[in-house]
Amino acid sequence: MASRTQATTTAHEHSEASVLTNDSAPKQAEVQMQRSGPRRSKYRHVAAYHSQLRHSSLSRDSDVTPSFMGFRNLMVLVLVAMNLRLIIENFMKYGVLICIKCHDYRKQDLVLGSILFALVPCHLILAYIIELSAASSAKKVVGEQKKKSDEEKERDQQAFRSTWPYTAFLHTVNATLCLAVTSFVVYFYIHHPGIGTLCQLHAIIVWLKNCSYAFTNRDLRLAFLNPSADPGLPEIYATCPYPRNVTIDNLTYFWLAPTLVYQPVYPRTASIRWSFVAKRLAEFVGLAVFIWLLSAQYAAPVLRNSIDKIATMDIASILERVMKLSTISLIIWLAGFFALFQALLNALAEVMRFGDREFYTDWWNSSSLGGYWRSWNRPVYSFMKRHVFSPLVGRGWSPLAASGMVFTLSAILHEMLVGIPTHNFIGVAFFGMMFQLPLIAFTAPLEKMRDPLGKTVGNCIFWVSFCLVGQPLGALLYFFAWQAKYGSVSRM
Amino acid sequence: MASRTQATTTAHEHSEASVLTNDSAPKQAEVQMQRSGPRRSKYRHVAAYHSQLRHSSLSRDSDVTPSFMGFRNLMVLVLVAMNLRLIIENFMKYGVLICIKCHDYRKQDLVLGSILFALVPCHLILAYIIELSAASSAKKVVGEQKKKSDEEKERDQQAFRSTWPYTAFLHTVNATLCLAVTSFVVYFYIHHPGIGTLCQLHAIIVWLKNCSYAFTNRDLRLAFLNPSADPGLPEIYATCPYPRNVTIDNLTYFWLAPTLVYQPVYPRTASIRWSFVAKRLAEFVGLAVFIWLLSAQYAAPVLRNSIDKIATMDIASILERVMKLSTISLIIWLAGFFALFQALLNALAEVMRFGDREFYTDWWNSSSLGGYWRSWNRPVYSFMKRHVFSPLVGRGWSPLAASGMVFTLSAILHEMLVGIPTHNFIGVAFFGMMFQLPLIAFTAPLEKMRDPLGKTVGNCIFWVSFCLVGQPLGALLYFFAWQAKYGSVSRM
Repeated sequence: MASRTQATTTAHEHSEASVLTNDSAPKQAEVQMQRSGPRRSKYRHVAAYHSQLRHSSLSRDSDVTPSFMGFRNLMVLVLVAMNLRLIIENFMKYGVLICIKCHDYRKQDLVLGSILFALVPCHLILAYIIELSAASSAKKVVGEQKKKSDEEKERDQQAFRSTWPYTAFLHTVNATLCLAVTSFVVYFYIHHPGIGTLCQLHAIIVWLKNCSYAFTNRDLRLAFLNPSADPGLPEIYATCPYPRNVTIDNLTYFWLAPTLVYQPVYPRTASIRWSFVAKRLAEFVGLAVFIWLLSAQYAAPVLRNSIDKIATMDIASILERVMKLSTISLIIWLAGFFALFQALLNALAEVMRFGDREFYTDWWNSSSLGGYWRSWNRPVYSFMKRHVFSPLVGRGWSPLAASGMVFTLSAILHEMLVGIPTHNFIGVAFFGMMFQLPLIAFTAPLEKMRDPLGKTVGNCIFWVSFCLVGQPLGALLYFFAWQAKYGSVSRM
Repeated sequence: MASRTQATTTAHEHSEASVLTNDSAPKQAEVQMQRSGPRRSKYRHVAAYHSQLRHSSLSRDSDVTPSFMGFRNLMVLVLVAMNLRLIIENFMKYGVLICIKCHDYRKQDLVLGSILFALVPCHLILAYIIELSAASSAKKVVGEQKKKSDEEKERDQQAFRSTWPYTAFLHTVNATLCLAVTSFVVYFYIHHPGIGTLCQLHAIIVWLKNCSYAFTNRDLRLAFLNPSADPGLPEIYATCPYPRNVTIDNLTYFWLAPTLVYQPVYPRTASIRWSFVAKRLAEFVGLAVFIWLLSAQYAAPVLRNSIDKIATMDIASILERVMKLSTISLIIWLAGFFALFQALLNALAEVMRFGDREFYTDWWNSSSLGGYWRSWNRPVYSFMKRHVFSPLVGRGWSPLAASGMVFTLSAILHEMLVGIPTHNFIGVAFFGMMFQLPLIAFTAPLEKMRDPLGKTVGNCIFWVSFCLVGQPLGALLYFFAWQAKYGSVSRM
């Protein structure tokens, strides 16, 4: 960077009115000539342009490595040019494929989807009722304890605790129903994969919130029943101690807030900036339209053209198709990430005055797959860490085994999210997630290297495995399975 | 950069045995839990993951802009993937197009080319003879001056100077013949464009050397005849004052040295590192083969496919072809630059113990077209500056007019170098060079901006105008003209 600055400054200092005067060696010569007075014009041809030993700047002999910022600009330009060319090629081949009226869905899909969207949050209300009864029992036990002896206290607590398995059972049935009913309806009765995915995503989010709500309240109740010992509760909860948090308002806030981790109290912002909300929503809508255009005009033909190649297992062609698809799926992925995690979640957080906006950290710099999974989706990461990983480690599991459990659960949820709406339980999403574990183990040493090269290699492995191969290949396989089952992308 | 380092260091410090333990917020929670003692396992689910106000790192609210180094890696990877795909596509379409035996040239081309290669340097010897006679006359005049009166001295010098136009005339005839004969033979009798280009390039280089030799010696002679005044000659020339420099050895060194600017004395290195020479030659050969493979396998089909589009003036298709060609021509250009200016000229300089290896500076960072032309080809730039620009400015021309003259001369030479071997004086190279003048004027203000954005824009204009549009378009037009004239690329 320093050499770059130096180089441009030098060029700047010497720049004069004309093209050919910006140079230090001729400058010296000129000064020399001016000194020699009247013969100036006659001696122009003798200046010593080669007056000292100098190295080519790309040679190893050279002391200063030149800046290569220009090549960064060139890379961006070549990427733009290559993709512009593909856009022209695409239009010459296919014309305009975007068609608003062509989008077709069965009325049944919409009706069922709406019913599911309305039903799923009801399970949260059931969870609230379960918690409310548990809380009132707990209050009674604690209220009566003041008058009783230690022995009686102990007996009461034991009696109360014996009811806990029922609470846990009710929560489990409630949460499982939420997920099972939705999955069943989507798999068997909702044909359109888009509507199906939305329903399934909603159900999974509510299921996770349900779990977090139940687990957190159980521990809070435990702390409530043992007031003598240091409760070890976070200071932020002090403003709303158990069981005052078990209210319908508190639960509604958790339902709508952009988090999967239940806390009685969250950090809150002072006010809602509606202009901020409007900007984020405009970003979301713009990107959604952008993604739709890209999918219809670019991704769809590539996917369609690749069906024959997969059917005949033509490896070179499949590779070529995956590579062609990788650029477009990468752009869709990046746009989708920004639309959801930056635009939509920030808009939601602003409306909810939810203070912690760390929905992601700089995952694009991840130098290992582990780093990526820790940083790209913080809501899910936080849930897994708080309700799966930490408790398992607390029970004596090794961190490795606990991580395995986290990824297994995550793999099941991913397969449910992709396999059910596409009506194909082919396991690609499941095994794709499980395959992360060896990749994480493989790239972990690279992340810890002091040499920046190690980190760069780790980062490249992440991009290649995840974005350039994993995603387009997954999309291709689910698309192929869909085609094999239904013969056509949509019921056009 | 700072934030990147910080981010990775933090990740590094917290990295533990497992995937899910690298996080600062849970870390605090863990510490808190450990403090609370035996109930640790029961309180895992209450940790406050949202304990403070935080912004999304891509939000404007965020204080720290995250590093985007990961996206640089991604760009490189996408470029590699896109080009790998094009390679696969190319092989699936065309198979292997590389064919050593298919290269055909007429025997006459080789014979004539060899004769030209032998004849052209003879003009340098003629230039030497002209200079030798002028030098001996000058010596005689100076030698006799010691015994004569001032008036006689003046008369002698005037008499001698009256012979100068003859010297100039002889040099002009000699140099022009060198270029004219080669151009004539190449245009009319050498069919193969490769052999033609080599002959033409050689003739132009020797012509430039010839001019520099004549101009420099004229000024040195002038200084020799006026010993009283401060000669204003560079100090480096002191070891070989005029007319001791007019020897066949001195001229041979200039002929072979990697410069177009004649100096009686050059900075020299102490010894020849033969390993350095071998490495540079290996680079040159490797890159030459690489360029040949690229041209045959990738550039040739694109050029061939574009003929119909140019013939029917299908603008969208021509644009698509230029863009497709631009990537490959850019790679060939970069490889060719490195092969010639870094590998070949450095090897030659090492063998000649030529000390000044500044054959180019960091032209890839140029933030204006003027900057590019000053930095990419230092030998020609030095020649133009010393023998065209500075003398014209010395005669009172404005720098702008002198620059115009330089680019006009350069444009003529470029057209001779491209138009003659391809047997098509279509003027694209000429007007391409002349078009640099408005581009230079347009980008000059960008270069002078303090804002780095201005420089980046200037750099992008340079890349687009020169490498992404100018060169592929030029190549396409000369190829089209060739096809129109001969109907086939080679006489296969």
